[in-house]
Amino acid sequence: MTYLGFSKMRMQPEEEYRARWRRLQAGMAEVGAEGCLVSTVVNWLYLTGTVVSGFAYLPAEGEPWFFIKRPLNGEGERIRYIRKPEDIPEGLREAGIPLPEKLLLEADELPYNEYLRLETIFHPRTTGNATALFRSLRRIKTDYELALFRLGAKAHTQAYRSIPGLFRPGMKETELQWEIEREMRRYGCLGFIRTAGDAMEIFMGSVLTGDNAATPSPYDFALGGGGVDLSLPIGANGTTIEPGMAVMVDIGGTATPYITDMTRVFSHGRLPHKAYRAHQAALDIQTEISALAAPGVACSDLYDAALAIASKEGLAECFMGTRQQAQFIGHGIGLQLNEGPILSHRSKDSLEQGMVFALEPKFVLPGIGAVGIENSFIVHPHGLEKLTDAQEQILPFLQT
Amino acid sequence: MTYLGFSKMRMQPEEEYRARWRRLQAGMAEVGAEGCLVSTVVNWLYLTGTVVSGFAYLPAEGEPWFFIKRPLNGEGERIRYIRKPEDIPEGLREAGIPLPEKLLLEADELPYNEYLRLETIFHPRTTGNATALFRSLRRIKTDYELALFRLGAKAHTQAYRSIPGLFRPGMKETELQWEIEREMRRYGCLGFIRTAGDAMEIFMGSVLTGDNAATPSPYDFALGGGGVDLSLPIGANGTTIEPGMAVMVDIGGTATPYITDMTRVFSHGRLPHKAYRAHQAALDIQTEISALAAPGVACSDLYDAALAIASKEGLAECFMGTRQQAQFIGHGIGLQLNEGPILSHRSKDSLEQGMVFALEPKFVLPGIGAVGIENSFIVHPHGLEKLTDAQEQILPFLQT
Repeated sequence: MTYLGFSKMRMQPEEEYRARWRRLQAGMAEVGAEGCLVSTVVNWLYLTGTVVSGFAYLPAEGEPWFFIKRPLNGEGERIRYIRKPEDIPEGLREAGIPLPEKLLLEADELPYNEYLRLETIFHPRTTGNATALFRSLRRIKTDYELALFRLGAKAHTQAYRSIPGLFRPGMKETELQWEIEREMRRYGCLGFIRTAGDAMEIFMGSVLTGDNAATPSPYDFALGGGGVDLSLPIGANGTTIEPGMAVMVDIGGTATPYITDMTRVFSHGRLPHKAYRAHQAALDIQTEISALAAPGVACSDLYDAALAIASKEGLAECFMGTRQQAQFIGHGIGLQLNEGPILSHRSKDSLEQGMVFALEPKFVLPGIGAVGIENSFIVHPHGLEKLTDAQEQILPFLQT
Repeated sequence: MTYLGFSKMRMQPEEEYRARWRRLQAGMAEVGAEGCLVSTVVNWLYLTGTVVSGFAYLPAEGEPWFFIKRPLNGEGERIRYIRKPEDIPEGLREAGIPLPEKLLLEADELPYNEYLRLETIFHPRTTGNATALFRSLRRIKTDYELALFRLGAKAHTQAYRSIPGLFRPGMKETELQWEIEREMRRYGCLGFIRTAGDAMEIFMGSVLTGDNAATPSPYDFALGGGGVDLSLPIGANGTTIEPGMAVMVDIGGTATPYITDMTRVFSHGRLPHKAYRAHQAALDIQTEISALAAPGVACSDLYDAALAIASKEGLAECFMGTRQQAQFIGHGIGLQLNEGPILSHRSKDSLEQGMVFALEPKFVLPGIGAVGIENSFIVHPHGLEKLTDAQEQILPFLQT
């Protein structure tokens, strides 16, 4: 049952990364940049498939150079050890690479002071935004990335199958969550969830029971929950799972670096009729979006179509929350949980082939809890591929 | 056994936060700042005890105003709802607060572009570094914060007591880690570990077995470990726990927002003699540092004293690693895992009353694994208080 084989299977294909470098260089050429300096973990991952302490410098042509602060676990080429970023220009000179007139820096990720320090070191004529370039490339996944998504989704769906059997009468939602977390780990999840910015702090994911699902959270998740401590106000608050309550499980899939997002709803016994009706409305929304979605379709149109169904069903007031209603029904996923595109009314994004996104139509019902669905999808030329393909009805817990 | 009562007990004493605001204002006065704008989670926590989506503005005198983007779960004063930071100046005007000539912004935390946006909104004559001010205050803990540390340490040490009984022969270190993680959760740990910067990604903590303890990691932890995936190269790599191997458990304590740090070593049966000798050297270092440590003592002197003992014992080459040796033996802890002071040879810090730090002398022994100790300490006027006070010898796993 233990699912740990993944990392051993991973091939780290060099050609994959070379192709990424060429795409980055094409993007650099478009904005006239002669160099791009990378130091954040997520962009190091995109550039090399692993985490390194230091700076990667990608020139306009040729291959990147790696300026590294700690000994590497393994071997590599074009590596120079440095103590501080001030040592990089000398390394570039020795490699025959001129300092750039226009340098891309991670302007939406680097702290202000770090950015100024790098400007002082390189004193380029101008700087540009490496974050924007990486994010625009990262939202279109390669075949290699899609293969990792499929592997991760498989582990995710397998682990979720255990959930009905983890419940014991009298359990708090927190207690159920700890068992699910352990199960996710046993199926190979790394646990750690990378997000862009600090607006989405979370530990593995959330389990929401009963009226806690309506509690607003300061974070940018679709639903909230009060959490068990004011310092991490999200998710399970320790509600005891009583008969007639819906329990929504939204624990992130992290069996590969590519995060999969999947929500399923469980019940303690039978729920009131309106819970099944609202749940069916969420499934109808998913069906409708799946029929509409294709490359070129505006994400705002998808959001509007979802809201129209919720309204037609008389459920607009509990769509994506009650006291606080999320203004989106889906979001891109990848190395970070919150990538592009965003599926909201105001979104300027359109779907493109190779995008991967989570679609999560959900309803919050007073006295019952949250119902609805979330799956991760790949955008193909003629429609969507559902990654997290598993039973979607509200599942009663097994009572042993 | 479930330890969930903490958050219910927490009082959120208003006076505590008012005193913090006054100390921040005293620091602002020292640098002639008329306002301080806060938006990062960790500084929101320090300012209010909770997480809010938005901006807190602390004027030179009086109380902070809160500009909030999402509905608050609860009530509060001096709150204005905004859609975007551009709405803040109007709110300040209506509150009768002039725009600052000198504004402190979180210069080591805010992304470059976010900082520029705020500068454009407030157009102050000059800006200063709010990060530096918050970090200097945060390293000296209040009595209230120390009480939370004690609560967290109690949960941490209680959970660790279960570890010898969680082992089963044939287990991989990863499998043991999942059981420990669950146990930590059952004792109330939130799991989520906040760090400054992205040089310390980790999921709950690490379990290091045998020679994996010598594997270098790109992260700024005392020891490394290869991890199970190249995308998170830290900690357990799946080594099977064999007789004669040391297993070092360093899982973070997160039962309160104040992180406690604690390492204990376990063994599968009896270890070679040199493991106990090196472990004793680590305990001797802890004893020596505890005797020396007091307000005013230079952290570099503490590091040097530790290294001197390691050298005298002939263990300098495996002190704090082998293939990669950490250049510090301890670090401040608090709302983040890596706060000031740093206990290194190059440190300019001195101990001060109210500091809380983790001391972690460790040795890596080829063919055996890592031995040593880590505890969290409070600096009092006449010496240290050990927070994570529990059995320190190498403990054999129970074999059932």
